[in-house]
Amino acid sequence: MRLLEEGVPLAEVSIERIARTAGVGKAAIYRRWSGKEELFVDVLRAYEPAEPELPGTSLRDDLVVLLDSFRRRGVANQSSALLRTVHAQMKSSPKIWAAYDKLVIAPRRQKAVEVLRRAQENGELRADLDLDLLNDVFVGPMLVRVVLRPEADLSEDLAARVVDLLLDGLRPVSSPAPQP
Amino acid sequence: MRLLEEGVPLAEVSIERIARTAGVGKAAIYRRWSGKEELFVDVLRAYEPAEPELPGTSLRDDLVVLLDSFRRRGVANQSSALLRTVHAQMKSSPKIWAAYDKLVIAPRRQKAVEVLRRAQENGELRADLDLDLLNDVFVGPMLVRVVLRPEADLSEDLAARVVDLLLDGLRPVSSPAPQP
Repeated sequence: MRLLEEGVPLAEVSIERIARTAGVGKAAIYRRWSGKEELFVDVLRAYEPAEPELPGTSLRDDLVVLLDSFRRRGVANQSSALLRTVHAQMKSSPKIWAAYDKLVIAPRRQKAVEVLRRAQENGELRADLDLDLLNDVFVGPMLVRVVLRPEADLSEDLAARVVDLLLDGLRPVSSPAPQP
Repeated sequence: MRLLEEGVPLAEVSIERIARTAGVGKAAIYRRWSGKEELFVDVLRAYEPAEPELPGTSLRDDLVVLLDSFRRRGVANQSSALLRTVHAQMKSSPKIWAAYDKLVIAPRRQKAVEVLRRAQENGELRADLDLDLLNDVFVGPMLVRVVLRPEADLSEDLAARVVDLLLDGLRPVSSPAPQP
């Protein structure tokens, strides 16, 4: 991270240079990480807000915590030019992006799909909906704001608002049927 | 587009080179476009599926057509290495990205927000929902698939499925109240 803060492009951050900067031997690094990609993903993970613990009290509570972790990563990104630079450089490096996808994004997605699957089994969620699509429906609005509209509002109640409007649906609540 | 097909990086595509390739003078180009950015956005627009005409028959119909246009652009992107390259290069050129945002993305968003605003006025959509957030909720799932998960399923019924599940909500339909 010190190298990146100094403006060294990710492509020029080699294991050798990292070892020299950290004052250790290359072997010490290879004992822990199999390559630059894995090391880099770990560094980024340590720098971003941690993955959340799910409360497990209800589908709504779990989803709010999950989505709020996307929001918090977005806020971290908004306030850190370094994180923005790192993300941009990462996307232009297919090997590092593949490592990030495998080590971070895929497990995160798997966890969310498990939450949705349990909710379908519990009857908290319609059972006829495709889990993969459901996941995109929940994370989509937050990802649009975090990744594609970096200037968008990320206020603290955003996760709860998104979860509630998706669960309740967007049609007007029909008035109760008249009592006979 | 011929220059890009030949593998010339976007950064090296100058007005002078475009004029030479097209066999016209630079003045002929400047009569129509104020600069490389505007010209490039027009070329891209001509190459992508056209912006849709909205049927105007109902909120659902309009939203399905709007979302399906995102899906069709995603399908075009999946099948064209050139389009993928152009989009990637565009994102790394802040001036061209700004022109694309201003000339294409912002008007598209404005059109969608208008559809949602009319639906709130008609009572087709809950009136207490923030239009900007509503728009992200509708476009989010499709954008996740088109932009962030380029390998994702984009089958023909996707737009309708997304719109219906968002309008109806994701909770199980409660059984009708028992008749007295």
